[in-house]
Amino acid sequence: MIQAGIYGATGYTGYELIQILSKHPDVEICFATSQSFAGQTLDAIYPQAPHQPLISGEEAPLDKVDVVFLCLPHAAAAETAVLALNAGCKVIDLSADFRIKDVTVYEKWYKVTHPAPDLIAEAVYGLTEFARADLKQARLVANPGCYTTTSLLALQPILASQAAINGSIIIDAKSGVSGAGRAPKDNTHFMAVADNFSAYSIGRAHRHLPEIEAIAKTWNADTPDMIFSPHLLPVPRGILANVYVPLADAPALEAPHQLYANTYADEPFVTVLPLGQLASLAHVTYTNKCVMSLTLAGNMLIITSATDNLLKGASGQAVQNMNVMFGFEETEGLL
Amino acid sequence: MIQAGIYGATGYTGYELIQILSKHPDVEICFATSQSFAGQTLDAIYPQAPHQPLISGEEAPLDKVDVVFLCLPHAAAAETAVLALNAGCKVIDLSADFRIKDVTVYEKWYKVTHPAPDLIAEAVYGLTEFARADLKQARLVANPGCYTTTSLLALQPILASQAAINGSIIIDAKSGVSGAGRAPKDNTHFMAVADNFSAYSIGRAHRHLPEIEAIAKTWNADTPDMIFSPHLLPVPRGILANVYVPLADAPALEAPHQLYANTYADEPFVTVLPLGQLASLAHVTYTNKCVMSLTLAGNMLIITSATDNLLKGASGQAVQNMNVMFGFEETEGLL
Amino acid sequence: MIQAGIYGATGYTGYELIQILSKHPDVEICFATSQSFAGQTLDAIYPQAPHQPLISGEEAPLDKVDVVFLCLPHAAAAETAVLALNAGCKVIDLSADFRIKDVTVYEKWYKVTHPAPDLIAEAVYGLTEFARADLKQARLVANPGCYTTTSLLALQPILASQAAINGSIIIDAKSGVSGAGRAPKDNTHFMAVADNFSAYSIGRAHRHLPEIEAIAKTWNADTPDMIFSPHLLPVPRGILANVYVPLADAPALEAPHQLYANTYADEPFVTVLPLGQLASLAHVTYTNKCVMSLTLAGNMLIITSATDNLLKGASGQAVQNMNVMFGFEETEGLL
Amino acid sequence: MIQAGIYGATGYTGYELIQILSKHPDVEICFATSQSFAGQTLDAIYPQAPHQPLISGEEAPLDKVDVVFLCLPHAAAAETAVLALNAGCKVIDLSADFRIKDVTVYEKWYKVTHPAPDLIAEAVYGLTEFARADLKQARLVANPGCYTTTSLLALQPILASQAAINGSIIIDAKSGVSGAGRAPKDNTHFMAVADNFSAYSIGRAHRHLPEIEAIAKTWNADTPDMIFSPHLLPVPRGILANVYVPLADAPALEAPHQLYANTYADEPFVTVLPLGQLASLAHVTYTNKCVMSLTLAGNMLIITSATDNLLKGASGQAVQNMNVMFGFEETEGLL
Repeated sequence: MIQAGIYGATGYTGYELIQILSKHPDVEICFATSQSFAGQTLDAIYPQAPHQPLISGEEAPLDKVDVVFLCLPHAAAAETAVLALNAGCKVIDLSADFRIKDVTVYEKWYKVTHPAPDLIAEAVYGLTEFARADLKQARLVANPGCYTTTSLLALQPILASQAAINGSIIIDAKSGVSGAGRAPKDNTHFMAVADNFSAYSIGRAHRHLPEIEAIAKTWNADTPDMIFSPHLLPVPRGILANVYVPLADAPALEAPHQLYANTYADEPFVTVLPLGQLASLAHVTYTNKCVMSLTLAGNMLIITSATDNLLKGASGQAVQNMNVMFGFEETEGLL
Repeated sequence: MIQAGIYGATGYTGYELIQILSKHPDVEICFATSQSFAGQTLDAIYPQAPHQPLISGEEAPLDKVDVVFLCLPHAAAAETAVLALNAGCKVIDLSADFRIKDVTVYEKWYKVTHPAPDLIAEAVYGLTEFARADLKQARLVANPGCYTTTSLLALQPILASQAAINGSIIIDAKSGVSGAGRAPKDNTHFMAVADNFSAYSIGRAHRHLPEIEAIAKTWNADTPDMIFSPHLLPVPRGILANVYVPLADAPALEAPHQLYANTYADEPFVTVLPLGQLASLAHVTYTNKCVMSLTLAGNMLIITSATDNLLKGASGQAVQNMNVMFGFEETEGLL
Repeated sequence: MIQAGIYGATGYTGYELIQILSKHPDVEICFATSQSFAGQTLDAIYPQAPHQPLISGEEAPLDKVDVVFLCLPHAAAAETAVLALNAGCKVIDLSADFRIKDVTVYEKWYKVTHPAPDLIAEAVYGLTEFARADLKQARLVANPGCYTTTSLLALQPILASQAAINGSIIIDAKSGVSGAGRAPKDNTHFMAVADNFSAYSIGRAHRHLPEIEAIAKTWNADTPDMIFSPHLLPVPRGILANVYVPLADAPALEAPHQLYANTYADEPFVTVLPLGQLASLAHVTYTNKCVMSLTLAGNMLIITSATDNLLKGASGQAVQNMNVMFGFEETEGLL
Repeated sequence: MIQAGIYGATGYTGYELIQILSKHPDVEICFATSQSFAGQTLDAIYPQAPHQPLISGEEAPLDKVDVVFLCLPHAAAAETAVLALNAGCKVIDLSADFRIKDVTVYEKWYKVTHPAPDLIAEAVYGLTEFARADLKQARLVANPGCYTTTSLLALQPILASQAAINGSIIIDAKSGVSGAGRAPKDNTHFMAVADNFSAYSIGRAHRHLPEIEAIAKTWNADTPDMIFSPHLLPVPRGILANVYVPLADAPALEAPHQLYANTYADEPFVTVLPLGQLASLAHVTYTNKCVMSLTLAGNMLIITSATDNLLKGASGQAVQNMNVMFGFEETEGLL
C-alpha cells in the first residue's frame, strides 16, 4: 500500500484521479490540494465525489507520500515537482512542463520561463505502452496530453515501421468539453457548445503539436511536419482523431492492419478493431482504452483513434504509469 | 405568383421546403405528397408545421403547377421527374439522380438502373453560385448534396485558380443528424448519437465523393483524387468540413484569402471570414449561408467550410435555384 | 417608422430583440448599449448577429428614439427608465423592476432599494393578451418574466372563471439554459448541464413566484398560495410547465378545454391543443407562441404550457407589446 | 459462485445486467438470450460490451443455472418464469408481470391475459430496502419499475408515518431516453429528443401509476389517489421526480428531514441530502443510488428523488435483490 498526494484535485483530471485512486487496492490518498477550495471537501463541487478533504498546497505533507500527481497549470507544476522530488517522492506530472525535451521549444509555446529546466532530461515521457522499461526507474514522469496520446498511439506502428511517407501527416481531432477545463468561460458555456461544433487553433497553432512531433521523431527521424486541427465537440468527454498518413507506396490492404494488430496484440488498453469497423467515442468513454481502426484509400492510410480524454488521455494513463513505476499490476484500478 | 408541388414532403428536406415556400411571396404551394401520410396533414408529424394536406404521389395535379421539388429516394425521383417534365413543369430534384453525368458511375454507386438516363445530359447542376446562366434556361435541376455543397464551395476558388496541387485533397466532414433522414434507425436513436461521435464510410466509400470529384474536375482537370471522411455529430443540423489542399508552392499568407474573398465578394449566401476567425456551425444553422475560413500551414491550405445541411445543403439552395430559374430576387424567402 | 434603443444588447434577450427589430418593417434600431463591449459590434459576440455597433449607456442618444427596451439588471433598469421617460421615450422594461406593484414585496425578493418607486403604479404589466387596452396608453411597460408568462397564460382562464379551488396550485416548470443568462458560471458550464437535469429554488423560493401570485390574484382574489418548482433543462431554450389546479368539483372532461379554447380563440400567439395532444418544447422554440394542452385527472386540472423563454417569455412579447403601444399590427416582426 | 442466465440480453436493461454480472465476484453468466441477435455476440450491438454469445431463448440451458433474470416484454416474461421455476431456478423478473397483485388491474393496464396468474401471490415485490426478509425466501421476485422505484423510495417514510394527507399526491417525473427502450421509434429519434422536452401519459394514464399506488397503500391504507406526470428528457439516462405531498398539518421544518434521514440512515443505496441541497441527475447517473432531498413549503412536502433508471431503477436493483436472495453482500458488484 502506497500513499499518494494529488495537487489540483478540483479540476477534471484531479477529480478523475481521486475517483480511480479511491478504489485502487494498493493506494491510499494521503492528501488532495486545491487553492480555491481548501478547507472544503470534494463532494461540495462534484455530487458523486468521495468526501475527500481539500487542503492548500502549502499544507501538503510531502514527507508522508510515496507519489504525487500534479494536476496544476504549467510552471506551477514544475515548481511543485522540485519540492516533491526533494522530499523523496516520485512525481507524475499531468501538465506540459516535462513533456518537451527542448526547453526553448517549451518556452516558446508556453510563454513562460521553465522553473526547473535541469529536470527535463530525466523526465520519462509516460506514453505507457512505449515507456515501460524507463518508467520502472523513473522518479519523474511527464504524462502525455490527451490529443497527444490519441495521436501518438495511432502513429507509432507506421512510423516505427520506417515506411516512406510522401507529404504532410494530417491529424483532424475532435474533443469533448472536459478537455477545456472546469473554469467557466465563454467557450464552455452550454449555449456556446450545444448544437454547435467548432474548430480552434488549427494548422500549426496548438500546443500539443510540438509534443506530438517531437515524440514522433524519436520513432522515425524522417517524420514529416504535421498539420493538427483540433475541434470542440458538444459532448462531455472523449477524443476522436483521424490521422492521415500519405504513404509513398500503397501497401496491400491487410498489411498495415496486421502491423497495428501485432504492435498492440498484448496491450490491455489498446484495441485495433477488425477491418470494416470504425472507432467511435462510444468505444472508449469512461474507459482507459484507446480504440483505433484502419482505412486505406489509395496511398492514404487513415487511422481513426479514440480515447477518453480524462482517462487514457490524462488520469487513467497517469495511474497506469504509477502501476508500472511501483510494480503493481498495470491494469489495477483501471478496469 | 407561381404554383409549386413538393414530392416527399414529410422528410426533413420536404418539411424545410414547405416552411420556406409557405412564406415565399412569389410561390403558392399547390400540393405536397407523402406515401405514408397521405390523407393526413403535415402538422401531425412536425409540431410547428403549417396545416398542409398531404396527398399520395398518384393524386398530384401536375397540370396545375409550374415547378415541382423532388424530395424522393433516388430512382423514384427520376421516375417522377419524367412525369413532371412531360406535364410541362420545371423540376428541381433534391435526390442524386441527375447529379452525376456519367450514368455508369451513378449506377455503380447507387446500385440501381437509372430510370431516365436520357435526361441526365440536360440537367443543370444547381450549385447556384456557379450555375446562374444555365439555371435561367433549365427545365431540370440536380440540386447538390449537402456534403457536396459544403465541400465544393470551399474548393472552387483554389481549383479554378489552377494552382498546382501536390498530393491528395482530404475532406474531413462532420454532419448533424438530420442528414441521416427521418426514418428511425439504430444509428439515429438518441442513445446511439448523444455523447457520441463517429466516422462512417471514410476514405473513398461515400456516395457524395464521386459527385464532388466530378464537379471539381470541371474546374480543374488536374484535380487529384480525394479522400472524404464523413462523421455523425450529436447535433440536429449543420455540416462543418475541413478541406485540406496540399499546394505545390506555399503562397503568401494573404493571397488565398484574397482569392476567396474576391470570388465570393458579391455573393449573398457565401461569407469568407476575416483571417484569424474560424467557421463553426453557429455561423450557419437555420440560415442559407455557407461560411468559410482559411488557414495556411506551410504548403497546406485548409478551408473550414460550414453550412446548414437542410438549407444551403438542400432545401434552401433548392429555393435559391428556383428563384434564379423564375427570375425572382435570388434571396427571396431565404433571409 | 419609429426609432428604438436597446440597453443591454449583448445578453440573450438583448440579442433576440436586435434580431427581431432589425427585420421589423416599422422600426429602426437607433442604438444598442453594452457596458462590457462598448466600441465593438454585436457580431463579435454572436456569429449570426447583424453588424450592430455597441455604445456605452452614457452615450445613448435618448432624444433620438421613440422607445427604449431595457435588458438590464434590476435596479439599473429602473434608473435608466427614469432617464428615458424624462427624455420623452416610451419604455419597455424586461427586468423585474416594475412587475410587482407592492414595493415592499419587490424589495424583499430583490434585496435592493427600488430606485423609482413612484413609477411602479403607472407601469402596465405587459402580458399582452390581457393588457391591450392599457398598453395603448402606456408610457412604461413591465414585461413579464419567462416562467411567469408561461404560467399565467395557463392560469388565466380557470382563475378568471372563479371556479372553486381546493388546495395549493403547483407549477412544476423546466427551463432551457438561456434563461440563466450569458455570463459563464459554474451552473451553465456545458459539463454541469449536459446529461444532467436539476431543480433549484423550489417550493416558495424563486423570484418569479410573487409575480405570478400577484397577477393571479387580480383575476381571482381567492387564488390559493402556489408552489413553484423551477428546473434547468439541458437544452438551449424553451420552458415547459405543468400547472396543477385542484378543483373543488371535477368538471366534465370537455368543459375546461372549451373554456381555454374560447379564451384564446382569436389569439395569434396562444394555441390550445386539441384534447389528446400534449404541449412540448418542439411546439414553441424559435416562435413567439405559447402552446398549451389540458388534462383532467379526477378533480385535478393539469395545464401543460410551453413557450420559448427568449421570445414569448421575453423579447418576443416585448416587441408584441411595442406593436400594441404604437398601433402596429400586433404580429408584425413576430411570424 | 452461482450461475446466472439473462433473457433478453440486448435491451438496455439486459446489457446493464451483463455489465454488472460480468464483474460480480460471486456470479458466472451461463447464458444470455436474444431472439433477434441469436448466434451473434453482444459486442456487435454495444461497442463496450463483453464478447458474450447470444442464444435463442429456446436453447437456454435452464438446468445449469441458479437464477434467471427476465428482461422480456410483459406476458413473455411470465411464460418464461414458469419454465424457469419448474426447472428449479430462482427468477428475477424485470417486466411488470408480477408487480401488481390484483390480476384484473394488471390485465386492464397491460391489455393481455396474464399467462401465470397463480404465481402472482408468491412473487416478492423487490423494492430491496423494504423487502429483505421476504427476498431471502423468494423463488420469484418482481423487480420494480424505474419510475416506481424513484417514487416509492420518496414516499415510504411519509406514508409509513401515517401523517394525515389532505389532497392528491402529485408525482412530476422526468426520465432519460433509455427508459423508452432500444427499438428505434419516432419518439426516440435524436431529432425528436434533442433540444426538446415533452410530457406523455400524464394524469392517470401511465402503467407505473397502479404499481405505485398499490404499493403505497401497503404502507398507508389512506394514501390518496395520485397524479403521475412522466416526461422525456434529452439525456441518455436518469430519472428525477418531484413528489408533492400536501400534508394536513405543516410539520416543523426539520421533522420530515429527520424522518427521512432516520429511515435511510443505514442504507448503502439511498442518500437523503442535507437540508438546502437539491437532488439532481448528476448525483445518481451510473450508480445504483437513489438520492433525494426534502423541501417544505407551507403544508406541502416536496421530495425530489433521483435514480439512474437502468441501475437502481432496473438492473442494479435486480442484482441488489439477487445479492439478498443468495446471501451475498448486498452491495457486491454495485459500487
